[in-house]
Amino acid sequence: MVVNFSIVPIGKGNSLSTQVAEVLKIVSESGINYKLHAMGTILEGDWDRIFKLIKKCHKKILKDSDRVLTTITIDDRKGRTGRIAGKVQSVRRKVGKKLKT
Amino acid sequence: MVVNFSIVPIGKGNSLSTQVAEVLKIVSESGINYKLHAMGTILEGDWDRIFKLIKKCHKKILKDSDRVLTTITIDDRKGRTGRIAGKVQSVRRKVGKKLKT
Amino acid sequence: MVVNFSIVPIGKGNSLSTQVAEVLKIVSESGINYKLHAMGTILEGDWDRIFKLIKKCHKKILKDSDRVLTTITIDDRKGRTGRIAGKVQSVRRKVGKKLKT
Amino acid sequence: MVVNFSIVPIGKGNSLSTQVAEVLKIVSESGINYKLHAMGTILEGDWDRIFKLIKKCHKKILKDSDRVLTTITIDDRKGRTGRIAGKVQSVRRKVGKKLKT
Repeated sequence: MVVNFSIVPIGKGNSLSTQVAEVLKIVSESGINYKLHAMGTILEGDWDRIFKLIKKCHKKILKDSDRVLTTITIDDRKGRTGRIAGKVQSVRRKVGKKLKT
Repeated sequence: MVVNFSIVPIGKGNSLSTQVAEVLKIVSESGINYKLHAMGTILEGDWDRIFKLIKKCHKKILKDSDRVLTTITIDDRKGRTGRIAGKVQSVRRKVGKKLKT
Repeated sequence: MVVNFSIVPIGKGNSLSTQVAEVLKIVSESGINYKLHAMGTILEGDWDRIFKLIKKCHKKILKDSDRVLTTITIDDRKGRTGRIAGKVQSVRRKVGKKLKT
Repeated sequence: MVVNFSIVPIGKGNSLSTQVAEVLKIVSESGINYKLHAMGTILEGDWDRIFKLIKKCHKKILKDSDRVLTTITIDDRKGRTGRIAGKVQSVRRKVGKKLKT
């Protein structure tokens, strides 16, 4: 399955890049396939590995903040893998021209 | 923590109430505090119990559908409980008049 | 169409009920059908009226905050109205027992 | 402001790439800065231009489908532009190593 998630501490100031960096350190060391974009991080893998990772990230940010909002979107399609790149390629083929990705 | 979630099978027709009913049977038998509204279901409890429940619901809908989209929003605030009702009451007190809830 | 939305100022402290109360004052005076729950506010109406309202709320919260996160989910089903109550009733009928709503 | 959105027709089969391609044609011809990723499309611009574009995309998909779910997340930070690339660069600098983007 492919999962998009973001973790936002409330009440810690306007800049969130320090906290996102802490999350990305954990994600990049996990061995799980990922891709960072401007509005979140995409993961691909099975349910248990992904939620173990998101829990670890959420608890890390909660250590230094009294309130944390975490948003998770799951796209689970049977029998498909390689979808972080594959979904974008499939759209590009159908549009038939270069897209900004 | 308080969690809102919804599970949507893709490609199974326009009506989703049969699948939502399957989810709500599982939720209502779980013993976890919940509240159903028009755009999702709210849960309150700890991480492991809540994600065990959402996984069970997600896998149930995936049995009869080849693609499932699940959306989860977590609001985790230290030292607070009773927030499914409490958050709404807190807003109502500040507005100072009856609100539709 | 039925829309769920929430507006969160970042960096303004852990409590959000003051800002949610400001939003609900605007919503309750708009004449648009709504329902407040613990994780957001549900609206029902047409695209232009709803987005005019959400823009007004978003801009109001942005006045006193340097960064605002707003999340909007739209469920648009042709030929259906009365869905804030109707969607919940439809699920309840299929579950066949009382649900917490 | 930076906005992530996705538009999903319900009941039109398991593959969504044809509909996403229709959306991306509209987006790429709009002149608004965008970036497609596996879980949605990111836009940057002002409220009115962005919501005019998302409305056009939503209505297009609704033409051929009886039910459409659209999800929109707005990150609005005063005085900042160039954030589709800038937010990712800021995280990368803080992590201090190459990230998958």
